[in-house]
Amino acid sequence: MGLEISNHFYSKHLVQFYETDLMGIVHHTNYLRFMEEARVAWAHHHGLIDYQAPQSAAKFAVLETHVKHIKPAVFGDELNILVEARRLGHAKVQFQYQVRRLVAGEKSEVLCTGQSVHVALDSKLRPMKIPTEMKLILEKQRWTETWVANLSE
Amino acid sequence: MGLEISNHFYSKHLVQFYETDLMGIVHHTNYLRFMEEARVAWAHHHGLIDYQAPQSAAKFAVLETHVKHIKPAVFGDELNILVEARRLGHAKVQFQYQVRRLVAGEKSEVLCTGQSVHVALDSKLRPMKIPTEMKLILEKQRWTETWVANLSE
Amino acid sequence: MGLEISNHFYSKHLVQFYETDLMGIVHHTNYLRFMEEARVAWAHHHGLIDYQAPQSAAKFAVLETHVKHIKPAVFGDELNILVEARRLGHAKVQFQYQVRRLVAGEKSEVLCTGQSVHVALDSKLRPMKIPTEMKLILEKQRWTETWVANLSE
Amino acid sequence: MGLEISNHFYSKHLVQFYETDLMGIVHHTNYLRFMEEARVAWAHHHGLIDYQAPQSAAKFAVLETHVKHIKPAVFGDELNILVEARRLGHAKVQFQYQVRRLVAGEKSEVLCTGQSVHVALDSKLRPMKIPTEMKLILEKQRWTETWVANLSE
Repeated sequence: MGLEISNHFYSKHLVQFYETDLMGIVHHTNYLRFMEEARVAWAHHHGLIDYQAPQSAAKFAVLETHVKHIKPAVFGDELNILVEARRLGHAKVQFQYQVRRLVAGEKSEVLCTGQSVHVALDSKLRPMKIPTEMKLILEKQRWTETWVANLSE
Repeated sequence: MGLEISNHFYSKHLVQFYETDLMGIVHHTNYLRFMEEARVAWAHHHGLIDYQAPQSAAKFAVLETHVKHIKPAVFGDELNILVEARRLGHAKVQFQYQVRRLVAGEKSEVLCTGQSVHVALDSKLRPMKIPTEMKLILEKQRWTETWVANLSE
Repeated sequence: MGLEISNHFYSKHLVQFYETDLMGIVHHTNYLRFMEEARVAWAHHHGLIDYQAPQSAAKFAVLETHVKHIKPAVFGDELNILVEARRLGHAKVQFQYQVRRLVAGEKSEVLCTGQSVHVALDSKLRPMKIPTEMKLILEKQRWTETWVANLSE
Repeated sequence: MGLEISNHFYSKHLVQFYETDLMGIVHHTNYLRFMEEARVAWAHHHGLIDYQAPQSAAKFAVLETHVKHIKPAVFGDELNILVEARRLGHAKVQFQYQVRRLVAGEKSEVLCTGQSVHVALDSKLRPMKIPTEMKLILEKQRWTETWVANLSE
């Protein structure tokens, strides 16, 4: 589900036939799904999402996404989706991602980068402060300022 | 959303780019989504689904689906999804479908046929008898025995 | 497919059951699909995509997307996706979108805004200059600088 | 990707947030996608699909699918999709599937069963005889007559 590599949490994804389109490549909306996979695996890994209580995953609404495409992924590609997280003010969490394709000899190349901003919601779907438990976890995370920008521009 | 043509209720669907796969045709799982569109439009048309109370659509679980593919749909195709419904015992509803592509001169050709069986569920997701309101509507529906079989075999 | 309203081209979308997630709202990746629907309808309307020659739609690669979510869409919502387009340098095209929900009395409210950047590709998937035909069409399009930013911030 | 357990080939799938619907369960169309994952992994394992030549996966068209739902899968479920294959006449291949959820103590329970029929196509998408290479592989496969029927009825 999720693994850590050189201090980065990441999840793995094998590109499926149903994720391709008639251009012969992965449809662009699927990269946001791969990023969700990594974000959820990260949250699950840190005890922030309990799969047995699915509502726990529904407590963060997506406010904003930003994706840059560098090279297309194709059917059968083995992807690693690396993720970093940080707190944004009192109620928001920001994630950034690198979608990397494994190539021969333990190497990988960046196909796509992304960012997303999320807001914590209470049981009535009103914005609330990030829970302390999550705040403490976010303080220990690494955030590399130029991690996404450098690669995709 | 839904229309009636020669006594058949149907919904319309324009095939989107994101519904294709690398074979250049519509991915086979999307036909079940088109059939869901027709089924929901049918139920909404008959007052059985209230879009303002989404839970009303969640009261029928899919028990079984069966799809036969005759010709592939492609990007940009204008489809009509025709639907028939009947009661199956006390707790189940069966639907059958023809997915038709519009061709020149008001004609259409069958691309795909399907059937699905659904069970009514109470608020605790336990099977229950079909509500009387729905039973009365189903009694007035046409069910053509050979409608699906003849075309796809 | 596509219509024009107060000088804005837009396409319509009825939110389907299969587009929802366990939060009871439309999954965030689907808004990019609705925007693709509007973009394709716009291109088809201007003769830039021929549905009978699907490869014509495959000539523009997605370079970048940016989406801001204001309110969630739910099952059964009737959406209008308004679109504006402009040329960006010699090889790129930019689109911006407003996803609006119809409410009572001919009114609508903005649920989501977005932008996307695309690059023209030749038959070997190499970037190329925008075809003259498209360039001429883009010159006649309206581009409202604050159209997206004002609403979502 | 794919593994063998008590003589059955299977692939693994972790249920994602984007695969759920507003009933809080996996949308029924996704089970056919999980079955495609298992079928492709099986074909790749036997050298019948080369991920580096994606067209190799496009040589089998889906003719028919049949799915029976027993229990719903939910967000975070770890699934095993077991698969059996056999030849059907000269041009068709049939697959049957069990979608199983892992539960505590190495056990698993069947959530869903399915069958699919596929036809081999030549480069012009015309039906053709199954290639000898595939025929030889299919002859060595196990096919349990009552494997799917017993569980789902």
